[in-house]
Amino acid sequence: VTSTRRGADVGTLVARAREGDPRSVARLISLVEDASPALREVAAALAPHTGRARVIGLTGSPGVGKSTSTSMLVRALRGQGHRVGVLAVDPSSPFSGGALLGDRVRMQDHATDSGVFIRSMASRGHLGGLAAATPQAVRVLDAAGCDVVLVETVGVGQAEVEVASTADTTLVLLAPGMGDGIQAAKAGILEVADVLVVNKADRDGAEQTVRDLKAMLALGGRHSEPGAWRPPIVSTVASRGRGVEELLAALDKHARWLERSGEGPRRRLARAAAEVEAIAVAALRSRIGDLHGSKALDTLAAEVVTGTLDPYAAADQLVDTLTT
Amino acid sequence: VTSTRRGADVGTLVARAREGDPRSVARLISLVEDASPALREVAAALAPHTGRARVIGLTGSPGVGKSTSTSMLVRALRGQGHRVGVLAVDPSSPFSGGALLGDRVRMQDHATDSGVFIRSMASRGHLGGLAAATPQAVRVLDAAGCDVVLVETVGVGQAEVEVASTADTTLVLLAPGMGDGIQAAKAGILEVADVLVVNKADRDGAEQTVRDLKAMLALGGRHSEPGAWRPPIVSTVASRGRGVEELLAALDKHARWLERSGEGPRRRLARAAAEVEAIAVAALRSRIGDLHGSKALDTLAAEVVTGTLDPYAAADQLVDTLTT
Repeated sequence: VTSTRRGADVGTLVARAREGDPRSVARLISLVEDASPALREVAAALAPHTGRARVIGLTGSPGVGKSTSTSMLVRALRGQGHRVGVLAVDPSSPFSGGALLGDRVRMQDHATDSGVFIRSMASRGHLGGLAAATPQAVRVLDAAGCDVVLVETVGVGQAEVEVASTADTTLVLLAPGMGDGIQAAKAGILEVADVLVVNKADRDGAEQTVRDLKAMLALGGRHSEPGAWRPPIVSTVASRGRGVEELLAALDKHARWLERSGEGPRRRLARAAAEVEAIAVAALRSRIGDLHGSKALDTLAAEVVTGTLDPYAAADQLVDTLTT
Repeated sequence: VTSTRRGADVGTLVARAREGDPRSVARLISLVEDASPALREVAAALAPHTGRARVIGLTGSPGVGKSTSTSMLVRALRGQGHRVGVLAVDPSSPFSGGALLGDRVRMQDHATDSGVFIRSMASRGHLGGLAAATPQAVRVLDAAGCDVVLVETVGVGQAEVEVASTADTTLVLLAPGMGDGIQAAKAGILEVADVLVVNKADRDGAEQTVRDLKAMLALGGRHSEPGAWRPPIVSTVASRGRGVEELLAALDKHARWLERSGEGPRRRLARAAAEVEAIAVAALRSRIGDLHGSKALDTLAAEVVTGTLDPYAAADQLVDTLTT
């Protein structure tokens, strides 16, 4: 048992997190985010308690109202009795960047709600970055009993799109009059969308944005294949809670389609595979870095000089040395 | 025992190469150059017979007379009774690019001399390129009984400079009136030089080039450290064999210094370490490529989904799977 920096061991932290203790949840996320030595132990302790949460990605350009929409969704899901986790991987989000200021305080509406965990993900020098840390944080919230985990990202960079696209359901948010429809199409963001949300629908040009999106969806892509899910377009005014019922209905409909079509299990498998692959690649990269100037290398090189070993056998031994 | 494409097994090839059979030497170099499946077996069979040859790197810009100088050196070393191997890693060399045309024919002077092996190294899609293939070809020539292996490279690219700098002794060739002294200093080539050769010394400006080099060597660098080797500057006219005695004397002097100072064993160790490291890095890179979409990954991902395995344990198993 590895004791963590603040004393409590990993098993105790996981047990407390499962009882809903927000400090333990926060501590576990910090451990996985920092890739601390306890990371592997945390991952092992969480594994048996994961696989229940539904992961919803929420992405869009800055200014489309992602955090307001997240807040609206949290309220609605809480109203349905769900425990909800929020991971803000968006540097422009008011939830994000506040890891040190106390995340829960920043989302005033939910600050006193013990059924909501909110966490911003800082993009520190983590090996593999957010793409590696975010799935581990999702696991913490999943094990902590969250029925739904919302992952909020800015849909501008490839990394963020990837994070969003590994969700069970990906919401892509747009706002009228920002040329967003065309931008989104260019960025390939329509391809990852399961539900399209035109937020700020009380503004001029909202109907035009909806028409643009419909036209673009009609042009083809994966959504036009036989049996494929056709992403509904939902209009909302998140700041006033308008459109939330339609949005929940769209989410429910997609959840049912996921199970019926077999796409749900397929996505969970793909998500796990991507996660395992990313960790393995990081491990191998780290070994490459460890090769240079290592003590084992010098010993093996001496055997190569004397002809006791050939360089390929020596390289095999070197790689093996780093495995253990 | 792996049988090679043309029938003879690796053990027989190595035995024949050690008896001086040029076809077997050529075949073994092809096997290591192509990174054929027999490569590891070849490396293992060669290892006990290596470590004797002296490796001399010969580098310089196109037009300075590298191949004429190589030819002059081969003649002189043969005159001393040495067996000599030549590896031309220089695309501008008349020895190079001729793998398919019969290398030995291209160096007319030595075509009928059974104590000389000449081989051009082609820069095909070899994993790790020439930097990986050249040391293996040196091993073949070493095992085949060559007392000296000359590695001729163009001193313009970093890769070529690296190949040259792993030699026991590195000759840097320059010619008068090409602004070569300053170019060489800029490219860091003076730093790798053990002997500086001003070839075409019968041309105008030869003395100025020697003065320039002396001035630049006086400016510092590794050669000015206490106990360091100070590279002599030898003037030659390789096309007429002029200066060859001085060049051989400089090579002998450097050889004695290498053993006396401990730098010789240190270089051989560094060369072997670089070789082993390059092979290990290539092996790990290849494993990273093998991870994606592998069957093992899908199986492990399924266990992660059910919570039987955590993603880190799965990644460990994935990496292990690729090791065997």
